[in-house]
Amino acid sequence: MIDDLIRANRSCRRFHQEAAISRETLTGLVNLARLSASAANLQPLKYYLASSPQENGEIFSCLAWAGYLKDWPGPVEGERPSAYIIILLDREIAKEAGCDHGIAAQSILLGAREQGLAGCLIGSIKRERLRQLLQLPDRYEFLLVLALGKPQEEVVIEEVGPDGSIKYWRDAQGVHHVPKRRLQDLIIG
Amino acid sequence: MIDDLIRANRSCRRFHQEAAISRETLTGLVNLARLSASAANLQPLKYYLASSPQENGEIFSCLAWAGYLKDWPGPVEGERPSAYIIILLDREIAKEAGCDHGIAAQSILLGAREQGLAGCLIGSIKRERLRQLLQLPDRYEFLLVLALGKPQEEVVIEEVGPDGSIKYWRDAQGVHHVPKRRLQDLIIG
Repeated sequence: MIDDLIRANRSCRRFHQEAAISRETLTGLVNLARLSASAANLQPLKYYLASSPQENGEIFSCLAWAGYLKDWPGPVEGERPSAYIIILLDREIAKEAGCDHGIAAQSILLGAREQGLAGCLIGSIKRERLRQLLQLPDRYEFLLVLALGKPQEEVVIEEVGPDGSIKYWRDAQGVHHVPKRRLQDLIIG
Repeated sequence: MIDDLIRANRSCRRFHQEAAISRETLTGLVNLARLSASAANLQPLKYYLASSPQENGEIFSCLAWAGYLKDWPGPVEGERPSAYIIILLDREIAKEAGCDHGIAAQSILLGAREQGLAGCLIGSIKRERLRQLLQLPDRYEFLLVLALGKPQEEVVIEEVGPDGSIKYWRDAQGVHHVPKRRLQDLIIG
């Protein structure tokens, strides 16, 4: 069951932009992160939720998409995310997030996937611009932007080929291919 | 469904040590991490698996448990983990793990929980001692130790009290209480 959900939970970069996501849905996803583990139980993460066309546009303007797809600047209007959850570190609680944002992001994305949504974790962010647009004080550090929406993209996992490249690529039909290392190559000793 | 699994997936520090975990089970859990997201799809994580009493003892000797429980040095013999998955960064692939180990750890723990196991993420590690005991080269950086076993502990989530303390505590019946911040306090704006 969790195996199926993890397999289905592929990073997605093209969406049915018109399919709105309610604030209630976003709040429910944050609750999954809230209930997840946090180093020393400090719970230093905060969440900024966006789902209006205006804020979505502002956030979109601060993101870089799919570094390996050099000819693709990101989703076109109509295929953009319909919501975002921005994961912030509250520096008044902790100086570092450790890997708390990874735990939180995985909980959120699995929850989204279960509801028929998909998402993408984006770390390539114009942080100072985004801070100004959202008028967020320095207290909050931008860790990750989670783009969310109803998926409009087929993504397949395959085994890394003989050349060892892990760069994802898109074929002529628009299918997004993700090479994953072999299980036996991940286990030491 | 994922909500139930995330709620049930509490950090656990006392186990039925005699309940062995097979290498096949551990490998299956690593596969869940393998299928999860990785920044720029680099997949720089490697995994060291341990389930023999000797190796378990060596790893146990390098860990610090439950920082807030000052009078409790960790689980006694008979209640210790029956297996470990050590998450390593392969520095030949990437210089930093980002939050990949958080994503991986959450996938592993949710998979373990689904099988009736439980675990604890431990970052307080005597790293050099562990490196020597396991004879791991400098290429691998210790990120997290995941302790795993059949749970022998009741853990409850509750809302942070008026004093705002997030320190977990154990009551006279041995129940482990974990204060979580309120959902509305995690959402900005």
